[in-house]
Amino acid sequence: MDDKNYNNPNDKVLGICSGGLDSTVMLYFLASSGKLAGGLSFNYGQRHLKEIDFARKACGKLGVPFDVADISNLARLFGKNALTDKKVDVPKSDYDFSNMSVTVVPNRNMIFASIAAARAIALNCRGVAYAAHGGDHSIYPDCRPRFAGALAEALSLCHYYPVALERPFIGMSKADIVRLGADLGVDFSETWSCYEGGEIHCGQCGTCRERREAFKLAGVPDPTKYSRTF
Amino acid sequence: MDDKNYNNPNDKVLGICSGGLDSTVMLYFLASSGKLAGGLSFNYGQRHLKEIDFARKACGKLGVPFDVADISNLARLFGKNALTDKKVDVPKSDYDFSNMSVTVVPNRNMIFASIAAARAIALNCRGVAYAAHGGDHSIYPDCRPRFAGALAEALSLCHYYPVALERPFIGMSKADIVRLGADLGVDFSETWSCYEGGEIHCGQCGTCRERREAFKLAGVPDPTKYSRTF
Repeated sequence: MDDKNYNNPNDKVLGICSGGLDSTVMLYFLASSGKLAGGLSFNYGQRHLKEIDFARKACGKLGVPFDVADISNLARLFGKNALTDKKVDVPKSDYDFSNMSVTVVPNRNMIFASIAAARAIALNCRGVAYAAHGGDHSIYPDCRPRFAGALAEALSLCHYYPVALERPFIGMSKADIVRLGADLGVDFSETWSCYEGGEIHCGQCGTCRERREAFKLAGVPDPTKYSRTF
Repeated sequence: MDDKNYNNPNDKVLGICSGGLDSTVMLYFLASSGKLAGGLSFNYGQRHLKEIDFARKACGKLGVPFDVADISNLARLFGKNALTDKKVDVPKSDYDFSNMSVTVVPNRNMIFASIAAARAIALNCRGVAYAAHGGDHSIYPDCRPRFAGALAEALSLCHYYPVALERPFIGMSKADIVRLGADLGVDFSETWSCYEGGEIHCGQCGTCRERREAFKLAGVPDPTKYSRTF
């Protein structure tokens, strides 16, 4: 490789964002130190695109570019799962292996990271960031720390400069993220967690339950309207 | 992770194929030992789709399923390069850094591998294979051995079973691949190498030059029609 063709990246990262609570707080967190290049959401044929509108809105508020990577054409290749196949029901209970493995989109995080890295390279950013946190579920193989480490290593070698894979919330719980978001002035009512795409959060699916619990643990008022609570 | 939910994969691999010479020979090679689950091509907004028709035809001859992963919606995110941006000219000369870096689609191999792995998982295959060979150009960062090793490590951790990343031709030259293809009865006239999508191979771009040279070195008759040779 010729040194004079080595591109020095800028000091910003591209934030992978879903419009959910965690990634929205991450956008605010990165923007607060001037390190946010923009946001990138994925349309992978998920059941609803409601969350993407929230991600777009957050980037608009923060004054950074927002893009959607549309890989919805691939959904038919990914096999049966509740997130991309409308014929499979979303489990209505807490997370555990037997009921949540149906929500696995195979290798989703690597697909997202590899495309986000390509976009980051096109923008000459030094890396990408995603909002994995300490409470993420090891039921998803691609949420495990060893996988994240290997993925980071691969990204560091994929281009002429090392592309960073940042997980700023990896040492935090979801309650910690809620607290940080409150400090940063995030309007949580403009984030979406529910697997269903109803008018308001269902209150019953695994992500709704975790969301409610995180606000409770954080001692932060939860502005979310749930259609049903327990 | 619960052991009873560990899926044992079958012993086949999904072949990433472009309709080019190398990957077509690879499909034949894998099929010859009964290890080919099917072929997967990518539509990433390349200048022409002619090569995908050749890949489809090869899978048809081999009697295995063929799919196209359509990520052409992403082309606009990848920035300027000669493979996806029709406004950028394909360099008309041998490979070297200054004229070929314009053909870099950022992080292309990781994007391909991660999507192919997802498809392989959906098919319960033990892995994916691609036709990287010893002559691949280190100008492409994602053709370098260290990157390939890191990518293989990440794929081995991305799912409940380790997904293999196989490069059966990595110790071979393109001439070796031509020789192997001849032994396996590959009809080379039904493979496509040229970056341009003309009626016949242009004979001038880097891949055309390499193709002609490989036949010459292999001592195998080249059935390719070139519009111009030197």
